[in-house]
Amino acid sequence: MKKIDVCFSPELLHLYDLQHRVVVVVDILRATSCITAGIACGIKSIIPVASLDECKKLQQQGLLAGAERDGKKAEGFDLGNSPFDYMDDRLRGKTIAMTTTNGTQAIEGAKNAYQIVIGSFLNLSTLVNFLSTQERDLLVLCAGWKGKFNLEDTLFAGALVENLLEHFESEDDAALAAGKLYLLAKSDLLSFISNSSHVNRLKRLNIEKDIEFCLKPDQFEVIPILQNGQLIKLDIVNHLG
Amino acid sequence: MKKIDVCFSPELLHLYDLQHRVVVVVDILRATSCITAGIACGIKSIIPVASLDECKKLQQQGLLAGAERDGKKAEGFDLGNSPFDYMDDRLRGKTIAMTTTNGTQAIEGAKNAYQIVIGSFLNLSTLVNFLSTQERDLLVLCAGWKGKFNLEDTLFAGALVENLLEHFESEDDAALAAGKLYLLAKSDLLSFISNSSHVNRLKRLNIEKDIEFCLKPDQFEVIPILQNGQLIKLDIVNHLG
Repeated sequence: MKKIDVCFSPELLHLYDLQHRVVVVVDILRATSCITAGIACGIKSIIPVASLDECKKLQQQGLLAGAERDGKKAEGFDLGNSPFDYMDDRLRGKTIAMTTTNGTQAIEGAKNAYQIVIGSFLNLSTLVNFLSTQERDLLVLCAGWKGKFNLEDTLFAGALVENLLEHFESEDDAALAAGKLYLLAKSDLLSFISNSSHVNRLKRLNIEKDIEFCLKPDQFEVIPILQNGQLIKLDIVNHLG
Repeated sequence: MKKIDVCFSPELLHLYDLQHRVVVVVDILRATSCITAGIACGIKSIIPVASLDECKKLQQQGLLAGAERDGKKAEGFDLGNSPFDYMDDRLRGKTIAMTTTNGTQAIEGAKNAYQIVIGSFLNLSTLVNFLSTQERDLLVLCAGWKGKFNLEDTLFAGALVENLLEHFESEDDAALAAGKLYLLAKSDLLSFISNSSHVNRLKRLNIEKDIEFCLKPDQFEVIPILQNGQLIKLDIVNHLG
């Protein structure tokens, strides 16, 4: 049977063999929720970069650029890290550069994977359907918070583990723990994570609306996939089977 | 209020400031259970070393030496990594050298801490009583398995978090998750971890008896503490208050 593992931090990624795996990158609050929402709402592609400098360079070359550090929009950029920033009709058909505290670093760290797709609650069922047809082992990579474990990414990893039980087994305690936590939390994700460290950080920034939205399952039927350094909409029909 | 954090892997230890903290090193299956049992049963001191070579050298200098790699006793050493090995009357008053796959590496990694103590279910209540009187922040360091998250160490970390709620608060999602998992598991730890990766590894080695023992709370009223590179029995009375 195919395997699903969960990696709780990009700092642990070197312990996994990525080359033959599909890696699902997860940064629920908020990078991968932004990417999912943006690609679903018509952004043509998103170029994830690790540093503010690289992002600035792409902006100077004429791209719109989103940048967040420590939960806040970085100065001098066009977009922050709210999914609503990325659901703007004016972005339709455009290519956007993006850098965030954790999410885009995680994508960068996983670049040796066979394939990288983007996961969030917003595209949970679509992603589960797609992954269930894949022939390769999976690794769910939680972006975490500056290298540390975080709860919301773990719960999403657990949602994948639990929803893929028929197709993938886990040997890893991280997958087991994530699954147990998800089952405990799933009836009310918002209240379960209301004491989490990142939610407390974000509450101070007055973005409860973002948090609520990022925890809503199945708002969009897209899967962002990394191709040639750009996140684009996966052509699901041709990738199934 | 003082803080308690949980670090799920020695690979994440660089993300924490250790200098001013008391670090509890945890390797339930089985290094810190062995150390607790051994010190309780009269071993005078245990010298934890990271490599087989160092352990061999100490053995050649005349010490008894315990060594485990991948769950098995390493060839040419006197003791393996079963707590029953360390509860032998013939070890009373002796100094033992010890190296294991994960536990002694974790101790080595935490050496910059203000203080290092050893935790296991076997000395849970004694440890909780002692820690509750400490004036410094705590870090619970899970030894994990070769750098990866593991369930049994996490459950013990959660037991500390939950039992120290009156004295320590956590800002960390890892502490929150460990606490939730412990509450879920505590009525029957053995069956909760029966599907964990390490238990499956150990089952293949026929050491169910060790596993059962290592999950038993409060068998001993000792706290091993690291002093000058040696784990000795903490003089609890003089350290309280």
